Amino acid sequence: MSTFGTIFRVTTYGESHCASVGAIIDGCPPGLPLEAKDVQTQLSRRRPGQSNLTTPRDEKDLVHLQSGIEHGITLGTPIGLLVKNEDQRPRDYTETDLYPRPSHADWTYLEKYGVKASSGGGRSSARETIGRVAAGAIAEKYLKTVYGIEIVAFVSSVGRIHLPSFASPPKSLNEDEDAVEDILSAEFVELLQNISREDVDKQPTRCPHTETAERMTKRIIRAKEAQDSIGGTITCVIRNVPSGLGEPVFDKLEAKLAHAMLSIPATKGFEIGSGFRGTEVPGSKHNDAFVRKEDGSLGTRTNWSGGIQGGISNGENIYFRVGFKSPATISQAQQTAQYDGTPGTLAARGRHDPCVVPRAVPIVEAMASLVIMDQVLIQNARKTAASLLPPITTLPPTMVKPPTKN
Amino acid sequence: MSTFGTIFRVTTYGESHCASVGAIIDGCPPGLPLEAKDVQTQLSRRRPGQSNLTTPRDEKDLVHLQSGIEHGITLGTPIGLLVKNEDQRPRDYTETDLYPRPSHADWTYLEKYGVKASSGGGRSSARETIGRVAAGAIAEKYLKTVYGIEIVAFVSSVGRIHLPSFASPPKSLNEDEDAVEDILSAEFVELLQNISREDVDKQPTRCPHTETAERMTKRIIRAKEAQDSIGGTITCVIRNVPSGLGEPVFDKLEAKLAHAMLSIPATKGFEIGSGFRGTEVPGSKHNDAFVRKEDGSLGTRTNWSGGIQGGISNGENIYFRVGFKSPATISQAQQTAQYDGTPGTLAARGRHDPCVVPRAVPIVEAMASLVIMDQVLIQNARKTAASLLPPITTLPPTMVKPPTKN
Amino acid sequence: MSTFGTIFRVTTYGESHCASVGAIIDGCPPGLPLEAKDVQTQLSRRRPGQSNLTTPRDEKDLVHLQSGIEHGITLGTPIGLLVKNEDQRPRDYTETDLYPRPSHADWTYLEKYGVKASSGGGRSSARETIGRVAAGAIAEKYLKTVYGIEIVAFVSSVGRIHLPSFASPPKSLNEDEDAVEDILSAEFVELLQNISREDVDKQPTRCPHTETAERMTKRIIRAKEAQDSIGGTITCVIRNVPSGLGEPVFDKLEAKLAHAMLSIPATKGFEIGSGFRGTEVPGSKHNDAFVRKEDGSLGTRTNWSGGIQGGISNGENIYFRVGFKSPATISQAQQTAQYDGTPGTLAARGRHDPCVVPRAVPIVEAMASLVIMDQVLIQNARKTAASLLPPITTLPPTMVKPPTKN
Amino acid sequence: MSTFGTIFRVTTYGESHCASVGAIIDGCPPGLPLEAKDVQTQLSRRRPGQSNLTTPRDEKDLVHLQSGIEHGITLGTPIGLLVKNEDQRPRDYTETDLYPRPSHADWTYLEKYGVKASSGGGRSSARETIGRVAAGAIAEKYLKTVYGIEIVAFVSSVGRIHLPSFASPPKSLNEDEDAVEDILSAEFVELLQNISREDVDKQPTRCPHTETAERMTKRIIRAKEAQDSIGGTITCVIRNVPSGLGEPVFDKLEAKLAHAMLSIPATKGFEIGSGFRGTEVPGSKHNDAFVRKEDGSLGTRTNWSGGIQGGISNGENIYFRVGFKSPATISQAQQTAQYDGTPGTLAARGRHDPCVVPRAVPIVEAMASLVIMDQVLIQNARKTAASLLPPITTLPPTMVKPPTKN
Repeated sequence: MSTFGTIFRVTTYGESHCASVGAIIDGCPPGLPLEAKDVQTQLSRRRPGQSNLTTPRDEKDLVHLQSGIEHGITLGTPIGLLVKNEDQRPRDYTETDLYPRPSHADWTYLEKYGVKASSGGGRSSARETIGRVAAGAIAEKYLKTVYGIEIVAFVSSVGRIHLPSFASPPKSLNEDEDAVEDILSAEFVELLQNISREDVDKQPTRCPHTETAERMTKRIIRAKEAQDSIGGTITCVIRNVPSGLGEPVFDKLEAKLAHAMLSIPATKGFEIGSGFRGTEVPGSKHNDAFVRKEDGSLGTRTNWSGGIQGGISNGENIYFRVGFKSPATISQAQQTAQYDGTPGTLAARGRHDPCVVPRAVPIVEAMASLVIMDQVLIQNARKTAASLLPPITTLPPTMVKPPTKN
Repeated sequence: MSTFGTIFRVTTYGESHCASVGAIIDGCPPGLPLEAKDVQTQLSRRRPGQSNLTTPRDEKDLVHLQSGIEHGITLGTPIGLLVKNEDQRPRDYTETDLYPRPSHADWTYLEKYGVKASSGGGRSSARETIGRVAAGAIAEKYLKTVYGIEIVAFVSSVGRIHLPSFASPPKSLNEDEDAVEDILSAEFVELLQNISREDVDKQPTRCPHTETAERMTKRIIRAKEAQDSIGGTITCVIRNVPSGLGEPVFDKLEAKLAHAMLSIPATKGFEIGSGFRGTEVPGSKHNDAFVRKEDGSLGTRTNWSGGIQGGISNGENIYFRVGFKSPATISQAQQTAQYDGTPGTLAARGRHDPCVVPRAVPIVEAMASLVIMDQVLIQNARKTAASLLPPITTLPPTMVKPPTKN
Repeated sequence: MSTFGTIFRVTTYGESHCASVGAIIDGCPPGLPLEAKDVQTQLSRRRPGQSNLTTPRDEKDLVHLQSGIEHGITLGTPIGLLVKNEDQRPRDYTETDLYPRPSHADWTYLEKYGVKASSGGGRSSARETIGRVAAGAIAEKYLKTVYGIEIVAFVSSVGRIHLPSFASPPKSLNEDEDAVEDILSAEFVELLQNISREDVDKQPTRCPHTETAERMTKRIIRAKEAQDSIGGTITCVIRNVPSGLGEPVFDKLEAKLAHAMLSIPATKGFEIGSGFRGTEVPGSKHNDAFVRKEDGSLGTRTNWSGGIQGGISNGENIYFRVGFKSPATISQAQQTAQYDGTPGTLAARGRHDPCVVPRAVPIVEAMASLVIMDQVLIQNARKTAASLLPPITTLPPTMVKPPTKN
Repeated sequence: MSTFGTIFRVTTYGESHCASVGAIIDGCPPGLPLEAKDVQTQLSRRRPGQSNLTTPRDEKDLVHLQSGIEHGITLGTPIGLLVKNEDQRPRDYTETDLYPRPSHADWTYLEKYGVKASSGGGRSSARETIGRVAAGAIAEKYLKTVYGIEIVAFVSSVGRIHLPSFASPPKSLNEDEDAVEDILSAEFVELLQNISREDVDKQPTRCPHTETAERMTKRIIRAKEAQDSIGGTITCVIRNVPSGLGEPVFDKLEAKLAHAMLSIPATKGFEIGSGFRGTEVPGSKHNDAFVRKEDGSLGTRTNWSGGIQGGISNGENIYFRVGFKSPATISQAQQTAQYDGTPGTLAARGRHDPCVVPRAVPIVEAMASLVIMDQVLIQNARKTAASLLPPITTLPPTMVKPPTKN
């Protein structure tokens, strides 16, 4: 379906060449100061045409808020919004239309619906993500205002070029021994703690490590010049998350994040905290021991869990990595088959991003915001309900949340 | 919440030491032959005590079907089922209860609920997965009966020991160049095509490659002897999936699978098809070109997409990999802190699996079944509706699904 | 929340004085011919200013379809649509704003949200129903095209003036005896079988019984002249509904219809089939005996069940009645209290419908369409799934649907 | 589906002759004292065999709590519960099985599922309501503990015998004039304010007006002796409901209540507040003027709205009426047709309640509890979220909730 969320819900509509793309955001708390520019900032970061690394199409992507806000304050009612499509005509037929584009959604849409939009990828078009980014910006405004939550995503790899110290293969050669090095370098952990969107946007690739960023730029330009494309990964950190978010069984916080991330076009993988690399580390080393924090509350010494234990946030930084494949739409000719099975050559077509990860950064942030916001509201529902009950006096103390010791 | 699915829905209850764990399966098609043994087979594969690699607790895990079936045929009404807990007494208090177990859910449960079960991990206990495995077995029975769908999961790594040719790091040394080797070896692709549950169960580790399986066994025994634990990965393949499954935006088929997999306790990552490794491969090489299959229908030459394009199944094998962390519960002493922040040593406690991946194999299969089954029903809803409409005659032919050419 | 439906889902946004009101319709089957005029027809029936019985505000209510349709054919993707608000300025403050309007939503909105729109009733405004009517028209187009389903609502009472023979009080004087007359008159049953929207629209009151309609008109004009208002009821019939719709427990077809109808502003009651009056009739008389129909299938001799038994449609006409209170907004002065409790007189304000039932007719039809459409899709999901299973051969014949005898 | 609710969710399973009927209650707040007897009390009120007015089957209906509770305190995790069926054998075939019972669900179940339970009415059996009553008792325990909410249902009519002063037809003879008498008598309003379950249970009919109750008893016995059945209505009042509950558009509080009530087997109608009778009263008389209450807060002078305005609770008593048809299962012979259309006589069968309303009282209370509980949790989600935002300072004062004046 086209709706995401339980209490904070986003429903989107629109494809490439229809009148507009848009969304309805339902369940936004009332009383939140909100203006178009809060939304526009992230839409502009998502927009094509920001550098020579992205497609030169210049889509203005101006958001029009329709409802749910008066005098700059949310009313608690649904917020309708839309962004007009510049080119609203269905595409003219060309010979390339005889071919389903390889690794694109042309063929599967026909299998699913029996009919498809004349042009672009229908709902698989990147333009569909506009509604998500807008909705995410609203969620984020709330999370920032109330909890000081910070959500920052950045490019952690392009092709085989990785930001140093992340997910590096273990150096030890004997696979049957334990690896000795740390899971993530101290520098990387530090980066997660401090990185800001300003840091990220300094580089057109949105990789915050200058030297790596420059190599990534070259790699993307090489793909572009070869009429080819290249994939990459995005890492995202969420700071200042309250503990207690996430539902312990089917809707674990990491499950919701994985769902959200894999719903972004072109994604192929998700890993939380130490991720796949962490599966290679013995429990004795991987466990995050508890420590008393300066404010007297409990925290963990390391954070290989990525801020989530048993599906529930523990107050530490949540961080995860998302893999994006190389864009399927490339300008070079491809040997493939037509819809009817006739083999042939699909010629070059259109202008497209050789690499989507720089533009996907705000989309990852948006989907993360939507997940956290919805879980905040769900946890509110139960926590408030529990807080109104009389104190529990009949249980052993180890079954009840103890008061904080300073 | 404790419910998974939209039309085929599973709701589970139960924790370690309560009267029973169970589930209600709602939306099962009527007319399906179903007996307790259909469910029991997978429950027994999930059960502890199957080899010296798993915990010696011998839980019988006999399923009791309560409703929704008469004379061995499903009625279309909810199927209630339960498995009794052998030990139903709340745990006695010990000094270890002063400590939240590191990387376990003790502390986050208290943060979420303000109260927690006296023993085990509450709902984070592996016993909660019994309901899922039972539900998955029912879904699978339908999928096998109607579509011949085969779902086979196996252990693809334990610690740093990997089944050959899967997700191996590229050999080329210069990261700025393209890698030249294939994404997955031909042998591995062949394995995905042919592997059966019988093959998998030949090894106690459930890794179908004998030599690797033996190294894995040693690795797990080493962890056990060190009172430590080790993680690993499971790969799962789903064969004979109809095309057209999955909802194109938020509920892409891979997003639902990721959600399902990350909802399994101890999971840390998910990747579909070529996964993270595939992000390093240029589009020209990664794209799956179309070919006419022997039966005249369209297929793809390679399958780096993992059977899903644009969030919709394309009829090729769906395969994905899931990462499981090293179990948090270890027998060796750990330096950590009590609930109140007092530093101390959490002594050894209990007997637990040093590695969960062999037992997690049927859980992965179950969650995969639940996702596919629900999507089959959802696609039925729309496909049947569309099929009842008059044929489309006013659209350009490239917008409409063409008849198959033989 | 602002979403209705499970597979065919409508989400609406918008209040009185924002930029637009609109909706996203998700889950519409692909391949349905659909144009703006299909939607506009019902929107125009809902629109104010149609006769001297309704408010003289002339809202044009032109629908703008945004997505999900190409060349007049639905794509199966979400259909976004909107209707612009003519007057988009927040209302100026007047002294009447010190008073919550009696029996209106002003005060409860503040209790719920802590903030409310400056003007109109926010989401309780009748303008919110535009999205529903548009969505219902799309559902109806499908239902009509595929099943020949006809949905016709009409005004069955205004104030104490009732269409003859409906829900008349029993004539027998002794309440302890059974009533002897029929539940509904033969003429009324005939009306349900044959009435069309053209019949309904012949009268400005939308009551298809001319003499009664004229009395209703006078009653409404009397209310208008008295600066007062009056309520009424709408009866709706749905013909040619396939059997098997509705989920047998919580989502019985009548429960969904009741939910849908009571979600329309100003509604106070719902009754299906023989309704409240039928509760007074003994089972021996109220039961609908089965008969073989001309086409050999099974039908019922009478239809006091209103086309639904056990929550599931049986193929007979579904009919129900909905009660609408007298509009709360009246022009005469009212003795009441301000938000702060100060007693006072709320002076006349605005121009409003003295009676909403004539305009509510298409809203009732729309909500009925949405319910039936969603249930059709849900039943498709299961029925198709069941039809793919091998025939049941092991059950006693009385447990299995028998073949039709001609 | 078999699930009801959004945050507080109940899922039920079971039919007449399977092993057990049961439910999973998900989303119960943690920390609530809860014992089996809290649930058993209402189950026993629902149980057959309580008086000579109900079926003599003596079902013990002992509840077995399975999970989610330790030491008598809820853990916040799902509560599984079940009640064993005494007679678990599928019914033997008899000649009556050739006939679908008129106005029962036998035929529609076959139309929906193609297969049905051998006996009883499958899920349309009254035994399905056991799970609801148990769940409702848990919800009610919370609502009572935290808010002092009181939910009391009682029988307001049997056949044509009505509790005095409720829904009486207006005395004025000219339908074109306004009725002059009050909508409900002062005595009835007083009854709603004070009635307790003890009052209700004093009479076997559960009608709290002794003289009427005795006439009802005779009416039911007359139906029983005639091997016939009779319907009736139940009125329910909910006191001490917090203001602000209910979602303003599709999920208005009255829409949720209507949905809940019409999901109870045999129900035919629902009306809230002044109901259908209120549609006949002009707005000037029907509007509930505001008054300052003794505690300084705002209330209404009358309460024809039934405690809900714009779909949102206003803190006044919520009251509504539900119509139940005469039971379809009667012991006298009926002229009808077999499944294959052959006309014939369905002979007497079984022992059944001649009137369900006395036993349906706790079911109505349970469904009401479930609706209110879920809405409390949903409103918690948003209200807590809003309360954490900075105070609104930029809006005109009439748009913001004012402080209470004492």
